[in-house]
Amino acid sequence: MVEDLERSGFGIIQKKDGFRFGMDAVLLSGFARAERGETVLDLGTGTGIIPILLAAKTGAMHLTGLEIQEEFAGMAGRSVRLNGLEEKIDILTGDIREASRLFGRASFDVVTSNPPYVIGGHGISSPDRRRAIAREEVLCTLEELVRETAAVLKPGGRFYLVHRPFRLAEILTVLKKYRLEPKRMKLVHPFRDREANMVLLEAVRGGQPGTSVEAPVIVFREPGVYSDEIREIYGY
Amino acid sequence: MVEDLERSGFGIIQKKDGFRFGMDAVLLSGFARAERGETVLDLGTGTGIIPILLAAKTGAMHLTGLEIQEEFAGMAGRSVRLNGLEEKIDILTGDIREASRLFGRASFDVVTSNPPYVIGGHGISSPDRRRAIAREEVLCTLEELVRETAAVLKPGGRFYLVHRPFRLAEILTVLKKYRLEPKRMKLVHPFRDREANMVLLEAVRGGQPGTSVEAPVIVFREPGVYSDEIREIYGY
Repeated sequence: MVEDLERSGFGIIQKKDGFRFGMDAVLLSGFARAERGETVLDLGTGTGIIPILLAAKTGAMHLTGLEIQEEFAGMAGRSVRLNGLEEKIDILTGDIREASRLFGRASFDVVTSNPPYVIGGHGISSPDRRRAIAREEVLCTLEELVRETAAVLKPGGRFYLVHRPFRLAEILTVLKKYRLEPKRMKLVHPFRDREANMVLLEAVRGGQPGTSVEAPVIVFREPGVYSDEIREIYGY
Repeated sequence: MVEDLERSGFGIIQKKDGFRFGMDAVLLSGFARAERGETVLDLGTGTGIIPILLAAKTGAMHLTGLEIQEEFAGMAGRSVRLNGLEEKIDILTGDIREASRLFGRASFDVVTSNPPYVIGGHGISSPDRRRAIAREEVLCTLEELVRETAAVLKPGGRFYLVHRPFRLAEILTVLKKYRLEPKRMKLVHPFRDREANMVLLEAVRGGQPGTSVEAPVIVFREPGVYSDEIREIYGY
């Protein structure tokens, strides 16, 4: 099926019963910045939602999506063509753990990722292996993702990550270990009085220490009613 | 002068022109938990506000405040007597960096701290050295505080810290280094749409990894008007 991306007028192909892009990817695309002329790499691009949204909303010169699962990479490629973005976006099939070998060191201005959230998955907890690879760390751990990101980013380059607050302490520790200094952070709460279920992070390769925790995103104003900021991000 | 602590009916002595307790200490006292029968150590207690508020709102059996500056320790001791809490609270003059030597290892259930926020102060940036010691890391760094906290806490004991979000990545990294696992976190934003200016943390000695980021505290509903949650904490 083809899902409309309201804001951009773009569409994206995803399976009704397979892994689908979520609000995570949309919020990360809203949080990330890419300046005119910059190059972007999306690690574990899935349906290609992040490069397609960033092509719509930023001046990025070129975007690359890396996806290990052939089937998703194929869908992402079709979505790119559907939107006439072949000149701007490349979708490649490959392993995040080999990104610096594939692309070379210090080769991108920006890296984005909406990685699997679940620690050290074994690929047996989900009956569908494709879903497991997208959701659990079957093929790539957080540390491997961060290591490759630090390698492919230019000095001063920026990494945008969406993840679970549950793993926040580990995430910040690993980012600092690889000299990706956390500079901006934004928590996403489903309701004003509930704990956060997503965290958006910007880290700068070789940046000075010092984090700004921005105003939170509150998803629902009341049950079933999106907040104004979510309507704005989705372009309703 | 004696400041009323509305909620508890207690009062506290502080200097009009010296360093005064702030909302930081009040919010930390609201965030911290101490169960019936537990012992609490407040590192860098200043005017003694934190042990006095915790004596009011928790079942803690005994609280100790450690303060390096004689003048503050004296004020804190007078506040304890003013409130008739001599049986419950001890105020000692001493150095945070020697806490584990003073009190012994694994000797408290709970440690609290509202430490100096500014990195590696030199004691020359504030014309008033007493204020500088309370605000800047003149006498004790974050890492020294965390090291001593980890040493004096019992296994499974809890550390409650208020600090600046600017230093969040460093704080979480140092806590993990000393096996104080960050378990709960709460950001404080002055307004709904502004970045956070305080962070409240609970870390557990030897705890399992995994952080819950609770609903944020928003201080002002509109300029000059406290939010309901702040009124509740202050007992207005």
